[in-house]
Amino acid sequence: MSGERLLILAEGYSADTHYGKTMRGLLRYRREDVVAILDSERVGAEIDGVQVVGSVEAALAYAPTTALVGVATQGGRFPPAWRALLADCIRSGLNVENGLHEFLADDPELGPLAALHGVTLRDLRHPPAGLDCPTGENLRVPADIVLTVGSDCAIGKMTVSLELDREARSRGLASVFVPTGQTGIAIAGWGIAVDAVVSDFVAGAAERLVIEGHERGGELLLVEGQGAISHPAYSGVTLGLLHGSAPHVLVLCHRAGAVEVDGYPGQPVLPLAELVELYERVSLPARRATVACVALNTAELDDEAAAAAVARAEAETGLPAGDPVRFGAGTLLDALLARLG
Amino acid sequence: MSGERLLILAEGYSADTHYGKTMRGLLRYRREDVVAILDSERVGAEIDGVQVVGSVEAALAYAPTTALVGVATQGGRFPPAWRALLADCIRSGLNVENGLHEFLADDPELGPLAALHGVTLRDLRHPPAGLDCPTGENLRVPADIVLTVGSDCAIGKMTVSLELDREARSRGLASVFVPTGQTGIAIAGWGIAVDAVVSDFVAGAAERLVIEGHERGGELLLVEGQGAISHPAYSGVTLGLLHGSAPHVLVLCHRAGAVEVDGYPGQPVLPLAELVELYERVSLPARRATVACVALNTAELDDEAAAAAVARAEAETGLPAGDPVRFGAGTLLDALLARLG
Repeated sequence: MSGERLLILAEGYSADTHYGKTMRGLLRYRREDVVAILDSERVGAEIDGVQVVGSVEAALAYAPTTALVGVATQGGRFPPAWRALLADCIRSGLNVENGLHEFLADDPELGPLAALHGVTLRDLRHPPAGLDCPTGENLRVPADIVLTVGSDCAIGKMTVSLELDREARSRGLASVFVPTGQTGIAIAGWGIAVDAVVSDFVAGAAERLVIEGHERGGELLLVEGQGAISHPAYSGVTLGLLHGSAPHVLVLCHRAGAVEVDGYPGQPVLPLAELVELYERVSLPARRATVACVALNTAELDDEAAAAAVARAEAETGLPAGDPVRFGAGTLLDALLARLG
Repeated sequence: MSGERLLILAEGYSADTHYGKTMRGLLRYRREDVVAILDSERVGAEIDGVQVVGSVEAALAYAPTTALVGVATQGGRFPPAWRALLADCIRSGLNVENGLHEFLADDPELGPLAALHGVTLRDLRHPPAGLDCPTGENLRVPADIVLTVGSDCAIGKMTVSLELDREARSRGLASVFVPTGQTGIAIAGWGIAVDAVVSDFVAGAAERLVIEGHERGGELLLVEGQGAISHPAYSGVTLGLLHGSAPHVLVLCHRAGAVEVDGYPGQPVLPLAELVELYERVSLPARRATVACVALNTAELDDEAAAAAVARAEAETGLPAGDPVRFGAGTLLDALLARLG
């Protein structure tokens, strides 16, 4: 869709962690633009039909135009080996897209190097200028707004929003996916990473995104959620996004079977029924949102266990549930549309 | 306490708005260091016994060492007249402290000018380096942690924390006020403005603050709250601070009689009883917090109406209530200590 030919930089990627989230998202939702993956530990393998190479030089055979940082490094910063890799990309004439908290365009070495080679460094998390508090315009956007919320982070809220958007568009609805994180931005080509915005302006950034989603033709806006209301680190982002995007309806996302917050031993994931009530209770008083359905991530289960997990979620919440990746997004979209009326 | 002699820059201050919050906070809690106030529209007046002057030159008669931006300008940025005023201060050898979102130390004109004149530009909202997510250490700080929460912003949460801290210290308790905003930092001389932190790191900044509060000798930490859980703009800051500071007990702050969020026409302030329950419900699952008492701001009422408002808040919530500024902080501190056990 963009004319770009992407080389995904996946050095140090491990399939066991969520650190390859950006790569997986691109392979699922922007596969047509991906020409190669760089990962020196898997040279010769294929991932989703894409060739893995071991160096920038080897990648050039696939004529990439842009290298995209596909993994999160420790602490969101670039260690020396990564800096050398990025410099290689720049010297080879590739633009670089980066979703980490460390910005490349500001870098005293890589910035000038990019200028010298006439390539662009695009920091996906860099906030736009002029952000401020919400104005109240979010309540006047003439569109149905749907936000994914969750029981933890990195469990598939972006995926659920994208699957619902795809299903809605396939039915001829004027649906737009509204990206709020670096991977969503890499996939859709616009958006604001709300977790990188100064905290005073998170709701204002979310307001700006729903306004832009409508300007892009959306009568149904599927806003990518972030974090979780009960998450020990990211709850502030979650609530700012919930209030600033002012959704009418919520989709509760959950990884089937999870009982502990990832990375926070001893800190519990709340029961689904409690989360449904809590999200409704903390929604903006001027526009109360209700949870229409539950989207489960059952990737780690077999078909039988997945179906049982869906049935259990329905029993626990009294709401329609499903895994849109495994079973399709139709049931969940039906539930949304019924709630929107 | 600091050896500094403060000139408060209050140009454009209006007593009717909350934009003079920093000036009022300094006059109440750091009065001994304030030597003059600059406001060209009130030359010759006194505010709390401090002389108002019309220019930096006139202020020099009071031998200030530091000029402090005491008001919030529109959008948190400095218009041309303010930039000229700040340049005057710098050329007169004054350090400058600034709590707005626009940072002076980064300014291409004022930064070098300050270096030339050997003065310091201190941006109170500038986040410290190396912020990250919470580690879980917040749950292991060996201190009683109390956070003020509220029904709106700019209603006196900082004041309530400071009054409780003063009362606790007067009783011989090892209490420390933990500043989370620019005025609190200007008063106490340390802290992090959590509203200026990248939103991913608000909870991590709050964790760092309670750790530091304990390192500064606090066995009772009175953490300055921010925003409100139901505020259309600032709720994300509120929840990140609530989860990151991991309080045991909350004090609910409210401006008596307020029914609408300041600056957001038509957006309601929630009833006190609902706020009590909501704050308890959204507190960190790994450490549930309870509201111990209600602190009312009755500044706009007469004594009789204030007493009636306190009685009404007690009836609505079933909790002890009071206005610590008008009636003293003793009752509220008693309620806190009883809850902490």
